Amino acid sequence: MAGARRPGRNFLFVPGPTDVPDRILRAMHVPMEDHRSSDFPKLTKPLYEDLRKIFKTKDGQVVIYPSSGTGAWEAALTNTLSPGDKLLAARFGQFSHLWIELAKRHGLEVIVQEEEWGTGVNPDRIEEALRADKGHEIKGVLVVHNETATGVTSNVAAVRRAIDAAKHPALLYVDGVSSIASLDFRFDEWGVDLAITGSQKGLMLPAGLGIVCASQKALAAMKDAKCRRAYFDFGDQMRANATGYFPYTPALPLLYGLRESLAMLLEEGLENVFARHHHLAGGARAAVEAWNLRLCAKEPKWHSDTVTAIMVPPGFNGADVIDRAYRRYNLALGAGLSQVAGKLFRIGHLGDLNELMLLGAIAGAEMAMRDVGIEVEFGSGVAAAQAHFRGAQAARETKVAAE
Amino acid sequence: MAGARRPGRNFLFVPGPTDVPDRILRAMHVPMEDHRSSDFPKLTKPLYEDLRKIFKTKDGQVVIYPSSGTGAWEAALTNTLSPGDKLLAARFGQFSHLWIELAKRHGLEVIVQEEEWGTGVNPDRIEEALRADKGHEIKGVLVVHNETATGVTSNVAAVRRAIDAAKHPALLYVDGVSSIASLDFRFDEWGVDLAITGSQKGLMLPAGLGIVCASQKALAAMKDAKCRRAYFDFGDQMRANATGYFPYTPALPLLYGLRESLAMLLEEGLENVFARHHHLAGGARAAVEAWNLRLCAKEPKWHSDTVTAIMVPPGFNGADVIDRAYRRYNLALGAGLSQVAGKLFRIGHLGDLNELMLLGAIAGAEMAMRDVGIEVEFGSGVAAAQAHFRGAQAARETKVAAE
Amino acid sequence: MAGARRPGRNFLFVPGPTDVPDRILRAMHVPMEDHRSSDFPKLTKPLYEDLRKIFKTKDGQVVIYPSSGTGAWEAALTNTLSPGDKLLAARFGQFSHLWIELAKRHGLEVIVQEEEWGTGVNPDRIEEALRADKGHEIKGVLVVHNETATGVTSNVAAVRRAIDAAKHPALLYVDGVSSIASLDFRFDEWGVDLAITGSQKGLMLPAGLGIVCASQKALAAMKDAKCRRAYFDFGDQMRANATGYFPYTPALPLLYGLRESLAMLLEEGLENVFARHHHLAGGARAAVEAWNLRLCAKEPKWHSDTVTAIMVPPGFNGADVIDRAYRRYNLALGAGLSQVAGKLFRIGHLGDLNELMLLGAIAGAEMAMRDVGIEVEFGSGVAAAQAHFRGAQAARETKVAAE
Amino acid sequence: MAGARRPGRNFLFVPGPTDVPDRILRAMHVPMEDHRSSDFPKLTKPLYEDLRKIFKTKDGQVVIYPSSGTGAWEAALTNTLSPGDKLLAARFGQFSHLWIELAKRHGLEVIVQEEEWGTGVNPDRIEEALRADKGHEIKGVLVVHNETATGVTSNVAAVRRAIDAAKHPALLYVDGVSSIASLDFRFDEWGVDLAITGSQKGLMLPAGLGIVCASQKALAAMKDAKCRRAYFDFGDQMRANATGYFPYTPALPLLYGLRESLAMLLEEGLENVFARHHHLAGGARAAVEAWNLRLCAKEPKWHSDTVTAIMVPPGFNGADVIDRAYRRYNLALGAGLSQVAGKLFRIGHLGDLNELMLLGAIAGAEMAMRDVGIEVEFGSGVAAAQAHFRGAQAARETKVAAE
Repeated sequence: MAGARRPGRNFLFVPGPTDVPDRILRAMHVPMEDHRSSDFPKLTKPLYEDLRKIFKTKDGQVVIYPSSGTGAWEAALTNTLSPGDKLLAARFGQFSHLWIELAKRHGLEVIVQEEEWGTGVNPDRIEEALRADKGHEIKGVLVVHNETATGVTSNVAAVRRAIDAAKHPALLYVDGVSSIASLDFRFDEWGVDLAITGSQKGLMLPAGLGIVCASQKALAAMKDAKCRRAYFDFGDQMRANATGYFPYTPALPLLYGLRESLAMLLEEGLENVFARHHHLAGGARAAVEAWNLRLCAKEPKWHSDTVTAIMVPPGFNGADVIDRAYRRYNLALGAGLSQVAGKLFRIGHLGDLNELMLLGAIAGAEMAMRDVGIEVEFGSGVAAAQAHFRGAQAARETKVAAE
Repeated sequence: MAGARRPGRNFLFVPGPTDVPDRILRAMHVPMEDHRSSDFPKLTKPLYEDLRKIFKTKDGQVVIYPSSGTGAWEAALTNTLSPGDKLLAARFGQFSHLWIELAKRHGLEVIVQEEEWGTGVNPDRIEEALRADKGHEIKGVLVVHNETATGVTSNVAAVRRAIDAAKHPALLYVDGVSSIASLDFRFDEWGVDLAITGSQKGLMLPAGLGIVCASQKALAAMKDAKCRRAYFDFGDQMRANATGYFPYTPALPLLYGLRESLAMLLEEGLENVFARHHHLAGGARAAVEAWNLRLCAKEPKWHSDTVTAIMVPPGFNGADVIDRAYRRYNLALGAGLSQVAGKLFRIGHLGDLNELMLLGAIAGAEMAMRDVGIEVEFGSGVAAAQAHFRGAQAARETKVAAE
Repeated sequence: MAGARRPGRNFLFVPGPTDVPDRILRAMHVPMEDHRSSDFPKLTKPLYEDLRKIFKTKDGQVVIYPSSGTGAWEAALTNTLSPGDKLLAARFGQFSHLWIELAKRHGLEVIVQEEEWGTGVNPDRIEEALRADKGHEIKGVLVVHNETATGVTSNVAAVRRAIDAAKHPALLYVDGVSSIASLDFRFDEWGVDLAITGSQKGLMLPAGLGIVCASQKALAAMKDAKCRRAYFDFGDQMRANATGYFPYTPALPLLYGLRESLAMLLEEGLENVFARHHHLAGGARAAVEAWNLRLCAKEPKWHSDTVTAIMVPPGFNGADVIDRAYRRYNLALGAGLSQVAGKLFRIGHLGDLNELMLLGAIAGAEMAMRDVGIEVEFGSGVAAAQAHFRGAQAARETKVAAE
Repeated sequence: MAGARRPGRNFLFVPGPTDVPDRILRAMHVPMEDHRSSDFPKLTKPLYEDLRKIFKTKDGQVVIYPSSGTGAWEAALTNTLSPGDKLLAARFGQFSHLWIELAKRHGLEVIVQEEEWGTGVNPDRIEEALRADKGHEIKGVLVVHNETATGVTSNVAAVRRAIDAAKHPALLYVDGVSSIASLDFRFDEWGVDLAITGSQKGLMLPAGLGIVCASQKALAAMKDAKCRRAYFDFGDQMRANATGYFPYTPALPLLYGLRESLAMLLEEGLENVFARHHHLAGGARAAVEAWNLRLCAKEPKWHSDTVTAIMVPPGFNGADVIDRAYRRYNLALGAGLSQVAGKLFRIGHLGDLNELMLLGAIAGAEMAMRDVGIEVEFGSGVAAAQAHFRGAQAARETKVAAE
């Protein structure tokens, strides 16, 4: 860690970067090699195949950039749109906000639907706006699948239904940075056109890879897309990728890490990965309830299974909890951003995580809250999470026995 | 891990091997090098100096073997004794038992003082036996400082006082495998003659180094020691070590790991390391009390700060708790051995450990106990440990403020 | 390596990525951490300070992107220029070509001075073109300091003198990807405005960091620069960097690797690093002479100390040499690109390299050439390089003795 | 490395420890785990099976100690012999000498056949001595298969034939530390009773594992063997190993490393491994011939394929060559020991090695020799080795083509 020695492990519960499993760290510890060698495609080609399984797509085109997820946002937009094009986007958190801002910087005009923070995309409003757009000036709809800032998951399938109901040709752009490989995501079935993710969340890698999946319809839009681009150009990548290479030097350790990450996800089974995230998130939410605190997410339908944002009681500052947790207990929690700065703290529970790790974090959050004066009973959140885990386990065992 | 993929970290709470910090694992990831090069002593010589700080000795001779701690047991005995020599040893757990057995295999005659498991060395009985040995036939007294099997720490200083009170010349042999670098240990002040440790406990390394510290008196005993030895011969090591080399190829990564381990211990400060172990152990014991369970250690004076052995209620098998903890929660607990097999489980809390790690383990133990039918309240042990940690912290902060 | 097991080490002599020293690989093997923690700036802030030493600048603003060097090219241009702006650039190899193409994609108009491949920038022509640009429509001059495709180093200081002689306000953009941290480079003294490098060459890291250094004059140009940018925006970085953070999740292992790389370069001493590269390059060129082959570089003044491009005799294909070297000897050589495809092979000799590694590569090149029918005498290049190394060493020792 | 920064790789050409492949270093970079867990045997059991393939035995009992090879020497002797037992051993180098000395320390009486250094075991003399031993007082014959000090390989099969010809029941003890997994070795076929190896040579691991393979006849000798032993007792190991465990804490990273090492050896194919060593050794010997220097090995029949010991001309000191090679060229060569101290230097060529690595070392040896005044022509050894490699390759290709 950047700071001085503190005994034992850091409990990393920010919603990304997530813990990189030892197995992946090992896989990344590689000597360099010639990225133009005749052996190199043996490494790269299977990555695209396996990533398609993660996105759940048959024909989607996957592109891997040496960049953060922000770069993948930029790639998705600049390869498919022209300056002046209109986009429709809901804003309900810091990340939906930042994506809109990035689009504007590239000369795109964004029609923003403001939603209360703690809620998500309203498919009815989307449908309404698209129906109103008789001339089909709106070229794309931007959806942040999981708003990391507030712990809210939106219904992407419903957005697709809204677009279809409006018989509108707009492309569907989905930010899946904190959902893909952790939450159920179905590129083909949901008719997503551009899906974006990064390496440092559900893929359990360090940051440094921005990944985009593009539908055939999205690729068709490339030829008219006038946004200037070079580093993030799909075409250069696709031409080089076709033979197993890259247009410029790739971030080799991350490719080896990605190979291991994909192997681990597929070994565990994607549906099991999703179920595990749901199981753990249930424990986190049970703890919050036991603490008598509120979630930022307004209703159960918005509950995110990758991040839980917890409102601190009036008179307290979430930043104090976070600071105490970090300095005193070696526990990293996520902060409230922008509108909700100071009003909440966040527990990320995604990636390579199990029950005891989360219970340790919950125990630590209890201690940090007490330290700053928030009245929570020691062990109360832990006990509620334990009961949740046990109940869920019992239910599962009963079900297995009955089968 | 040896088995199939299970998400997240293993909670390793056996009393050794302990978690190896990332920093040490990194330090061990080295290419091989010529162990006879002119640069090699730059690595080795400071190791002996720093180990003397750990043993708290000025003149003690430290020898590092490529072996486990068992090898260090053997080295201490065979270098200083002759077949037929008499030893005095208390037996009160599996490790004191095994050391006695090893001594017998080397032709030594051991006068065994049986003590109830859950207690430790009785200095009065030691003194009595030595006083009775008018002819000074007893050549050494064996003390297991911390009996890992029962979570009992004996009073080495009191044993020294007993030997001195009896005006007996016997050498004092101390097994410090699960105490040194975790619990207060004073080679010179306590008049220890042979202290033994291994790399995989407080030194936070993998197993593979057996370390012995010998007093000048112990070294003097070498010349008459007729036990046959070659691999473990002090003389070969001392001659080679004097110039920074070894009599045979050393386990290089462990030497680099040891260098890092010693740096970390000295950075944290030995007294702080001891205080941390005491602090964490207090939390573990508070949890046991909250569970209404008993320790194997009979009285507070025996309480070990590196391992807590917890009796399961009648009708239950500790092995079931351990099995459940491992399989279901990825938590490794220590088993009851020999006399106490099935009657207890153990939580090791030594090495590179912090509060949240231990709280996670306590939460896991609660779940595993519940799963096998032991009635403990969810979160009860966690809450008690949290309160203990908070109280200890508050006391410390008050003290700091007052100074 | 991506392919099947082949015993022993790969000899990686492409001109990037270069061998990553074990020490850096170790430094990169880190758990993730919260990049918004209060400790994080302790890692990041010294990186900027040390990078300024590498660039040899006092006031230059350094920005580190999670990208390849190509991204740094894009960042340098888009942050300081507007679509339609004119640039002046010499083209004499694949990388000078690609940078020009990238500029065009961003709407910039590039006046190209074609130079023979094997030569470099002609400062006189630069001066002439700038003098002719009375209206100061040319906003920048692009110079590839070391053209990796042909093994040619251009004289950046002379280009600065040319600009000054023409009294022209154009910014000086320098691609230092395969020169910085290997060849003498002086940002301030040479009046460079934008210098670009990547992590995978002289910095001895994997690819994944694109680094730009901008002069105060370059930063002043930002406010009028209309090229659209978001991911590569200087402003976002500078605002976040000022307090030790990043606008989006950074590639953590590479930052730790960069810290180690900078420590190693400064330990060795930059001037010693440059001298070592010159020394090794001399050995490579001596081997080529002994083989009776020609360099791609037309004259000694163009000789690159980081990469040597060797023309194969008529009737042979450089690609065959490379293929044989890779498959049979586990030696990775660089290929001829574009105009010189098949006509040459390249030996990269930069980064963490010593004499014996290079002698091994030279011996391998001899064998691969013989295998494809090129008549070179076994050991001839090796002997010439050895003699060069010995002579250089002798000269150095004589000099030291005389001092 | 233990010393200060020197750029590039160390060329490690001592005959052990050998380079540990990156793949094995990665495999060893593991968190600790409970060595008593129910999963643990999944790691350990296959190790014994695969080691039997390496020893080429069906019924041999393999035991793995956390020790160096010296410990394995001790284990082989003390588990099968009693003090006062007679052994027959040839002495012709430092390692055959040391093993004899170790045997004596354990009270064994060794009948030593002195052979000239540079030669090896004389089976005729062995047979003669055994025939003379009418009373079968000789309990064992010690053979160092490959004498690392002089680069001499003895004929173990011939020794077995000698024992059989003499109709003598003595056990056959073979030190295979620098032969097993590098040179042809056949435990069953050659009737070896105790074979010894260490991890740091052909197994490509760091030192730290001593490995013994015992025949059924050797195991039968255990019950009467009175040598005192505890740490190295076969019985404790065999009882624990039978269920996949160890009698004391094992050196975990080395076990993971061993798993990878065995996988790599079996992937390459043992016969291919042997052929590779023969091929490389041929190159080393060709270089020595080109230098007009003599081998320590007196005749081709003694030539070792794992280490070449090279006599320096009269008037020169081998230690100077080694010192120069190490300090100036970062090349580690082996020294002359005891009788041959100063008279030779050694090139180890075993383990994970390829042609270019060896050519680099040969080039370095040339330079170091020249530096100390030995007249060798630059590139001469390299050229001879290249020609040898090429010829051998050509012969192999011709053979493949003809098939």
